[in-house]
Amino acid sequence: MKHWDTVAVVGVGLIGGSIGLDLLAKKLARRVIGIGRRQTSLDAAKRVGAVTETTLDLRAGVGDADLIVVCTPVGRIVDDVLAAAAAAKAGTLITDVGSTKQSIVAGVAGRLPGGVTFVGSHPIAGSEKSGPEAALLDLFDGRTAVVTPAADTPPQATEAVEQFWRQLGSQVVRMTPADHDRALAATSHVPHIVASALAAVTPEEWLTLTAGGWLDTTRVAAADGELWVQILTDNRREVLTGLANVERRLAAVRQALENCDSNELETLLAEGRTRREAAGKLRPRTSSNSSTIKGT
Amino acid sequence: MKHWDTVAVVGVGLIGGSIGLDLLAKKLARRVIGIGRRQTSLDAAKRVGAVTETTLDLRAGVGDADLIVVCTPVGRIVDDVLAAAAAAKAGTLITDVGSTKQSIVAGVAGRLPGGVTFVGSHPIAGSEKSGPEAALLDLFDGRTAVVTPAADTPPQATEAVEQFWRQLGSQVVRMTPADHDRALAATSHVPHIVASALAAVTPEEWLTLTAGGWLDTTRVAAADGELWVQILTDNRREVLTGLANVERRLAAVRQALENCDSNELETLLAEGRTRREAAGKLRPRTSSNSSTIKGT
Repeated sequence: MKHWDTVAVVGVGLIGGSIGLDLLAKKLARRVIGIGRRQTSLDAAKRVGAVTETTLDLRAGVGDADLIVVCTPVGRIVDDVLAAAAAAKAGTLITDVGSTKQSIVAGVAGRLPGGVTFVGSHPIAGSEKSGPEAALLDLFDGRTAVVTPAADTPPQATEAVEQFWRQLGSQVVRMTPADHDRALAATSHVPHIVASALAAVTPEEWLTLTAGGWLDTTRVAAADGELWVQILTDNRREVLTGLANVERRLAAVRQALENCDSNELETLLAEGRTRREAAGKLRPRTSSNSSTIKGT
Repeated sequence: MKHWDTVAVVGVGLIGGSIGLDLLAKKLARRVIGIGRRQTSLDAAKRVGAVTETTLDLRAGVGDADLIVVCTPVGRIVDDVLAAAAAAKAGTLITDVGSTKQSIVAGVAGRLPGGVTFVGSHPIAGSEKSGPEAALLDLFDGRTAVVTPAADTPPQATEAVEQFWRQLGSQVVRMTPADHDRALAATSHVPHIVASALAAVTPEEWLTLTAGGWLDTTRVAAADGELWVQILTDNRREVLTGLANVERRLAAVRQALENCDSNELETLLAEGRTRREAAGKLRPRTSSNSSTIKGT
């Protein structure tokens, strides 16, 4: 298994912190340099064991790195990748963990210095919590990591990034940036909007009448709003398409209810149940497999 | 604390079975008679310790009962309450656990023999699982149980049913049937529709790209469809109102996204986050309190 000498993690929140924890706990890297904009976050990352050293200076922090993982909010990733690339040594590989991929891959394309390579990633793992104190060992173990090479990405760079995620226990899925964004609109971005809407329209005086169903259905609504505004606006076109799909579906349920059509209602609910049960039964495939998912 | 001699549980699924388990484990009743339509379910209820005896004959099963708890699907509750009441001895108290209350309370009103009293209940607890094997000890502990007396219900009958739920550890909330149905449309019935819609519109080939967020948001979609068709059609008017609230909210988010209005988007998400966090912070009040919640 490949051993990294120096990995720079730009942004030491939940995801960046968890990557550092894993790299050090599993002895996959000798040094993990935490780079951030607030000393308090860097101190916390050091305290929880996610990094071996810290710096507020991105240029200084990435100079020795073999691998740079950019874990900043979606709206900052392109700038951070370009700044890191400008200070990186030749041969450095850069990836990110952004929840959207089209704008990031397109924003970096053709703007890197020679000898530095970028391959977009999205580990599908997380929590409604944030910050280095929320970092978890094994956060990526058994989860899917999507890797989204551009048409001209050198195959060995893509493979190295895929290997990195497998080292953290993830199952790697290779997709185009466009297919990734279309899929994630349905599996993550639109569910976030819907969870938030459900929570928002529930009057406060009825909250004692909620049980596990409401609490589960709305859980992700508690996540950081600013991060989500960036994700939703960045993936705006696909999110609008996915949202329209949900709105059409809700209108169909409403129509069936208005018509007192129990058969139609049962058919609609059965389709949801079948899909949910299929997801619940999925087991992560072995991490040695990489599969390609085509968009529909 | 009141001790029941004989409690009849009509319908020994998840809820009926859990009631029986608690009554026997906490020695709140000497006999729990499980009444059902399938011998296999009754046998399972006996096996898991939810009942002391079983019968397929409702009339025979309720004859000795001091308390009858009707735990059948919403669409059958009125008929089962009336059948049980016709065979019950004078002084018997009847309650139910249906997820809707207006049609049940209205359907029973004025149709009971003298000496038998009905008070509607709804313990807000459950799971996407069903059947007596899914019964859980302490399912109602720390949860809210809504009790919905009619205008002419004798106060001592209401208090006895409230005491029953407190014996199982629940916090009791007294509401009118109409207020209950309006609130539950928002806190349970509409979330169910939304969870199902989200699951249904997610293409199967993207299910490996789901994480905790999607799985939580859609969890309740796996529940029994037939039961839910009964609940949704029974509470149709309030569900349609609640669904329209969610649809309006989704349209507002769509409008903000179409307008690229990040400020509005952040405001909308912040409202969802605030409400979700308020619900997460709620702690069950002490079970000696009964509070009244007014609909809005």
